[in-house]
Amino acid sequence: MKEEEIATLYNQARNWVIEAGTLVRDNLHIPLTIDTKSNANDLVTQVDQEVEYFFVSKIKKHYPHHFLLSEEGYGDREVDEKGIIWVVDPIDGTKNFVHQKKCFAISVGIYMDGVGEIGFIYDVMNYQMYSAKRNGGAFKNNKSLPALSSHKSLETAMLCMNHHWLMKNRLVDESYIAQLVRRVRGTRAYGSAALAFTALAEGSIDAYMTMRLEPWDMAAGRILINEVGGKLTNIVGEDIAPFEKSSVLLCHPAIHQEVLNHYLIPSRQKKI
Amino acid sequence: MKEEEIATLYNQARNWVIEAGTLVRDNLHIPLTIDTKSNANDLVTQVDQEVEYFFVSKIKKHYPHHFLLSEEGYGDREVDEKGIIWVVDPIDGTKNFVHQKKCFAISVGIYMDGVGEIGFIYDVMNYQMYSAKRNGGAFKNNKSLPALSSHKSLETAMLCMNHHWLMKNRLVDESYIAQLVRRVRGTRAYGSAALAFTALAEGSIDAYMTMRLEPWDMAAGRILINEVGGKLTNIVGEDIAPFEKSSVLLCHPAIHQEVLNHYLIPSRQKKI
Repeated sequence: MKEEEIATLYNQARNWVIEAGTLVRDNLHIPLTIDTKSNANDLVTQVDQEVEYFFVSKIKKHYPHHFLLSEEGYGDREVDEKGIIWVVDPIDGTKNFVHQKKCFAISVGIYMDGVGEIGFIYDVMNYQMYSAKRNGGAFKNNKSLPALSSHKSLETAMLCMNHHWLMKNRLVDESYIAQLVRRVRGTRAYGSAALAFTALAEGSIDAYMTMRLEPWDMAAGRILINEVGGKLTNIVGEDIAPFEKSSVLLCHPAIHQEVLNHYLIPSRQKKI
Repeated sequence: MKEEEIATLYNQARNWVIEAGTLVRDNLHIPLTIDTKSNANDLVTQVDQEVEYFFVSKIKKHYPHHFLLSEEGYGDREVDEKGIIWVVDPIDGTKNFVHQKKCFAISVGIYMDGVGEIGFIYDVMNYQMYSAKRNGGAFKNNKSLPALSSHKSLETAMLCMNHHWLMKNRLVDESYIAQLVRRVRGTRAYGSAALAFTALAEGSIDAYMTMRLEPWDMAAGRILINEVGGKLTNIVGEDIAPFEKSSVLLCHPAIHQEVLNHYLIPSRQKKI
């Protein structure tokens, strides 16, 4: 795909994300019918489904040969990695959306032949649009985000993760995580994976750990953090394939290896 | 004090809080000299001290007989509870301020003869002013906040607390806290006590637990949550005296007793 075509696609996608954000805000006052998938805390809303349907209809009309990978099931059942795939999370942070009506995002990543080319994360209620093009930089409301600094110590790092990391779990030994919590400046839990990627990209947090993300939770985020030099692996330090679910360790590059070597890898070994 | 005098004091204090917020925003671009009190994670900034000094000078000039209780030491060393006391936290959420330049608040509570009369919490970067007058209602940017609903279940509750509750600690047995985390809809950690009080007042969260707050961390918040019917005690269910430090359990009224009886009190008993 030529640079010109990518630019057109970028502008088109950006407009749709903004349009979808307006759709969400316009629907916020309507009482929600909350469906449940596997359990009461796994919330799906009409708005989630409407936003996904919005993208499906736009993409299928304008780009009939593109694929769509997304959460609520309106997308393609099978996608060909050798092609153009839109990876869409209509509402990332569904619990925040339902409970708080803020702190959620629309996330759209566009991949070509398995490589992330274009990413958008839209913090809908704050009207903040994070965007990135591969090798073209990362932006917040069209203002360039600087590359992450070369230095960062764990003692001055802000770590974002949910509380389950400190409870008995199948993945890690929680005593190592407690050591990590004691070492860093502070820990936070916000409830949106996409907004954790944007927070890392702009330096509000320096590390983000999560036990499992689906591909649409990180599709746009990984393109964004690539552009500022953030480091993304699973929790044992391996690369994450673009369309696979995975555990996630996302870090400022200066602390990634230390979090892995001193905390996550030993904690996994003790667990096994 | 007459109603008219209270109204005057309210307007005066509100103007000062807004002025202090402007002072903070204007200083945000200046590199911070970070002093440390007891350890590297206990951050104090010039801005903290400047904002406190701003309030001291205003109060001493306009209300020389009022007392000031505050964090950074410019206030009165001894205060007379039988009088008017301003309880000020110049920057609540110092780590967020230093690290993120957002998610912090100015908190000002005004007490008369030991009773909270007027409270302001100003979310500086979001330009959101929460205010309350005793028996006069709670407001967000002058829009009335409704009373908390009569019904709430733990299963649909959002709980705000830091990660240390799930680690070995001197206060509670962490296994009970883990049970509570598994029961609620979700857990969050934001790093500002004052903004946890505002989040509870507007229904973004339904419970907030913290192991220790200083009086200035909750002086304004307790006036605000009184007006919407929130329930505030320490973690064994006792009232908190207005100018004492304390552990805190702040809840939607429908779940306060259950959190205490099923989780916090048994956890304390196991600990002792």
